[in-house]
Amino acid sequence: MTRTLANSRDTALLHRAARVIPNGIWGHMATRAIAPGYPQFFSRAEGCRVWDADGNEYLDFMCAWGPNILGYRHPKVDGAALAQLARVDSGNGPTEVLVDLAERLTAALDHADWCLFQKNGTDATTACVTIARSATGRRKIIMARGAYHGAVPWCSPSVIGVTAEDRAHLIAFDWGDLADLDRAVAEAGEDLAGIILTAFRHDVGRDQALPSAGFLQAARAACDRSGAMLILDDVRAGFRLDLRGSWAPYGVKPDLAAYSKAIANGWPLAAVAGAERARKGAEQIFTTGSFWYGAAAMAAGVATLTLLAETDALSHIAVMGQRLRTGLDAAAARHGYQLRQTGPVQMPMVLVEGDVDLRIGNALCLAALRHGVYLHPKHNMFLCAAHGPSEIDRAVEAVDAAFADIAAAGLEPA
Amino acid sequence: MTRTLANSRDTALLHRAARVIPNGIWGHMATRAIAPGYPQFFSRAEGCRVWDADGNEYLDFMCAWGPNILGYRHPKVDGAALAQLARVDSGNGPTEVLVDLAERLTAALDHADWCLFQKNGTDATTACVTIARSATGRRKIIMARGAYHGAVPWCSPSVIGVTAEDRAHLIAFDWGDLADLDRAVAEAGEDLAGIILTAFRHDVGRDQALPSAGFLQAARAACDRSGAMLILDDVRAGFRLDLRGSWAPYGVKPDLAAYSKAIANGWPLAAVAGAERARKGAEQIFTTGSFWYGAAAMAAGVATLTLLAETDALSHIAVMGQRLRTGLDAAAARHGYQLRQTGPVQMPMVLVEGDVDLRIGNALCLAALRHGVYLHPKHNMFLCAAHGPSEIDRAVEAVDAAFADIAAAGLEPA
Repeated sequence: MTRTLANSRDTALLHRAARVIPNGIWGHMATRAIAPGYPQFFSRAEGCRVWDADGNEYLDFMCAWGPNILGYRHPKVDGAALAQLARVDSGNGPTEVLVDLAERLTAALDHADWCLFQKNGTDATTACVTIARSATGRRKIIMARGAYHGAVPWCSPSVIGVTAEDRAHLIAFDWGDLADLDRAVAEAGEDLAGIILTAFRHDVGRDQALPSAGFLQAARAACDRSGAMLILDDVRAGFRLDLRGSWAPYGVKPDLAAYSKAIANGWPLAAVAGAERARKGAEQIFTTGSFWYGAAAMAAGVATLTLLAETDALSHIAVMGQRLRTGLDAAAARHGYQLRQTGPVQMPMVLVEGDVDLRIGNALCLAALRHGVYLHPKHNMFLCAAHGPSEIDRAVEAVDAAFADIAAAGLEPA
Repeated sequence: MTRTLANSRDTALLHRAARVIPNGIWGHMATRAIAPGYPQFFSRAEGCRVWDADGNEYLDFMCAWGPNILGYRHPKVDGAALAQLARVDSGNGPTEVLVDLAERLTAALDHADWCLFQKNGTDATTACVTIARSATGRRKIIMARGAYHGAVPWCSPSVIGVTAEDRAHLIAFDWGDLADLDRAVAEAGEDLAGIILTAFRHDVGRDQALPSAGFLQAARAACDRSGAMLILDDVRAGFRLDLRGSWAPYGVKPDLAAYSKAIANGWPLAAVAGAERARKGAEQIFTTGSFWYGAAAMAAGVATLTLLAETDALSHIAVMGQRLRTGLDAAAARHGYQLRQTGPVQMPMVLVEGDVDLRIGNALCLAALRHGVYLHPKHNMFLCAAHGPSEIDRAVEAVDAAFADIAAAGLEPA
């Protein structure tokens, strides 16, 4: 079905928001950064479906930008959190659930002996860097140019409001380039505290890239030689690719890793998970937050990790991701387009070949919206366990129809 | 009643925690930072009562270190959040509740035209500093020596894992000292981006101090002369003293303010609230988090701010705070002790005169625990709306008995 999307309520909310919120909305969920026509406000979510403020329903492939891994409002996850809420959430200290969660997380991950919990992915990446410096007594942090590690001054993609000193001890290198990594390690010299890497290259607007085993091994070896800490930023990818941590298939173990997003299926939670050799560094720093001991999100985390361990959710997501990728390629080909689908199928990055200015991708995604599917034209997307074969096939049909729409409108690759 | 506090479950949890969490527990809720004998783990909270993991019940005066302002598990707050959870919490964007909350918060505060929401108080203070730099194009931030503004490298009370550059553009001065403030402003010169101050002086382990009107006016005037931003860190005090912002009684308006803790009665939420002149600075920075658009905590925030506006909760808390202060002074005097109770009565700081090493305060608080009252010997405490006259009187009786215990044990001021 093609729909004209009602948007009067969304427009009215944007108008109200513009008065009391800078730009009407801030950060990564501002739809002006996607394409004009995307709804900004939502009213409901369930499984793999979302409804915007005007009541338009979409089959969703953003999954709240990652947190939704088992399906929105999963009854077992929310049930566990609500049962905890009925006892205590924020109290004068943690509850037994903290220990349950720490035990479950360290047991699931192949690299971790201990963990700490926070609220934001940025809390976790910042704590990892601080712990690396504490553990080593050194300052330099190597990171990949263009990688996203959070939105505070040391790592924000924007430099507005940031001072040069906030980034004084960062050394950038080109992701995956072993020679450039060597150059960065040499530049850091004896002051190398750590190397921080995302699970794979998932920068906005460009092809994703899985790491080679050799690249991860080289980073590991450089840290071993130097006594520095290898930090895995698994905030975005964590748990969706592998419950043991995203580098488990490579056999490369980080000393420190940051998790968030999918850890509690949408409840606000983040974690630093570390190896024994980083424990003392963690013991020495001061890191805390008013709500970091909140038990409801931790109960949701225990339930989420339990379900991921005890069901076939992750293998299902991988199968569905492949089904989507194959279907989208075929749909594109039927209309004379070619897609560039890169990275893990569980986190689809779908770009159109030759679409340098995203003109086609934007039009395609807007057309898909009208056909009832919520995609993103330049950020990786996410699958969840609630995506079944019928939802994937319906999404492919919708994208097929969207390709027909844009082809009819004369949109062709430059 | 005097109790021997069962602690076998707490001890067992600490033992398990020590394996999978550095130091067993991190941050401000680690009870080893209070005094040996404090329970670490809790199992339940309701109104102004908490139960530890062993089931011991306490009349509570920490209020989750601030968030609990209306009573733990307030049915209207939790009801609003749960109703929102049944629709959507973390989705692909915000819900209408974001706009409701922004409108309600800017209407309540006397200084704010717009706001942004986060998860941690530190998120909000960090964003305020970044916005001040963005708005002014300058770098220097003046802050009071010893003030707590959060737990990330630029402001953490610990320097372990922190580099000198993280604090390169901070200038410290002595809180309340106008001449020292002038000196700091002169040192910043034309590079002054902002002055950040807590609502009043509430540093750990020392007497609290309310600001003089002259001090706040001097900080405001310095910012006006220089074109810098005056930042109120109202994370700890916000909403408990005055719903219009803690400086409203002084008639001094900050350009930017950070709120968190009590804003949603225990649900994880923080806010930056700014004046029109700081809006452009806010529009230009990039600040975001995976869960910052979560609607459940925002619904809790709307309900909390509504209840604070429409009930006598805040005046009640002030009356109960005065009743507690008067009662505690009398109880101390009955046993030959003298207390130093400072700062606002809603946030009691209770120190014992002559108790330089906290030996008496620690013993007093441990004795009070056995008499069923949870106090803190060196951090400010918090009252909530669920504290009624009978709870205050019972707390005073318990502290009276605790003084009798420590007097009998021979504990006297040095």
